[in-house]
Amino acid sequence: MTRWEPDARGRMQRAALDLYAERGFDETTVHDIAQRAGVTERTFFRHFSDKREVLFDGSHELEQVVVRGLEESPSSVPLEMVADGFAAAAPFFDERREWSKKRSAVISAEGSLLERELLKLSTMGAAITEALRGRGVGDRDAELAGDLGVAAFGCAFQRWIDGDYAAVAGDGAGFAECLRDTFRDVSGVLRACDQVAAPQVENAAI
Amino acid sequence: MTRWEPDARGRMQRAALDLYAERGFDETTVHDIAQRAGVTERTFFRHFSDKREVLFDGSHELEQVVVRGLEESPSSVPLEMVADGFAAAAPFFDERREWSKKRSAVISAEGSLLERELLKLSTMGAAITEALRGRGVGDRDAELAGDLGVAAFGCAFQRWIDGDYAAVAGDGAGFAECLRDTFRDVSGVLRACDQVAAPQVENAAI
Repeated sequence: MTRWEPDARGRMQRAALDLYAERGFDETTVHDIAQRAGVTERTFFRHFSDKREVLFDGSHELEQVVVRGLEESPSSVPLEMVADGFAAAAPFFDERREWSKKRSAVISAEGSLLERELLKLSTMGAAITEALRGRGVGDRDAELAGDLGVAAFGCAFQRWIDGDYAAVAGDGAGFAECLRDTFRDVSGVLRACDQVAAPQVENAAI
Repeated sequence: MTRWEPDARGRMQRAALDLYAERGFDETTVHDIAQRAGVTERTFFRHFSDKREVLFDGSHELEQVVVRGLEESPSSVPLEMVADGFAAAAPFFDERREWSKKRSAVISAEGSLLERELLKLSTMGAAITEALRGRGVGDRDAELAGDLGVAAFGCAFQRWIDGDYAAVAGDGAGFAECLRDTFRDVSGVLRACDQVAAPQVENAAI
């Protein structure tokens, strides 16, 4: 029987994120993380396969919540179903905006973390595509909506942690509202905009 | 002065791709690649930083072609500008469909290569967003159109190498046509589809 460690997992995650932010990902060892969290290295490896994975805990659960939300969406518009899926996960994000913000800064600063993050998102896109097929969406549209949906989610997430969104929509604005706004904007980028500059033509006759 | 090696770069790329396909990425060393290409390991490292990068040669040039195409697009619709950007790169793809196909299979089979590919695409998205801003598109739409555009490009690329596209559109159908079709489909996923299955409701009264 292993020793009972109340919230050892959470402590390791917080310790890892803090250390990556303070001294950088490369300069932090599993030993450092375990020490700060007050656990052994063996305990660390019982929970996480490596020092990257400690930041990606919960990504599978998130995927399940999104897929379930999509399956239960009342819409018959593929991209709306995807939006409903992500909206089902909004409470997950609202509970941890500060954590998400710090995590995002750490990930952006370190190529190998960013690569892992993008891979997780790509896996999420594949799961969404599969769920859309299950709802009867054709293969081509399901693939496109899965990948577009993840891209729109990524933009929404960035807006939400940047704080620009809170500034515009009010401090109480949650992730669900930011998500809805962003998915609505998808139609916007398919419409002509007035302020677009004329193409740059080199050596134009003057 | 270094010894002149006719197309050493191309030979190393072909050797690496062949070896990754034959025996797997992990089982291939820089020594193996250099040997098959008939160069020294030193020559390899003069051209590529590691054995991953050898598959990503040209991604910066591709980005420049796409950005240039976007800057010269006659459209004022953000996502159309992005489509025009990628269309400018179509000849690049048409010249090497078999290479792209083999490369894609190798990348999908190896997590660390897939991560690198996704990172390159994300960098491309940022460059596109920047170019859209240069055309006068607002920040939020520029970010969204950049990321959606890369997602749509990824789908188009997959369709094109899968061969399904060639089967539907005829063998002579180039990447540009596949790209146009895919970008057109973006509007499709914003419309209701008839065949969508009703939401799964558990314990529904029968």
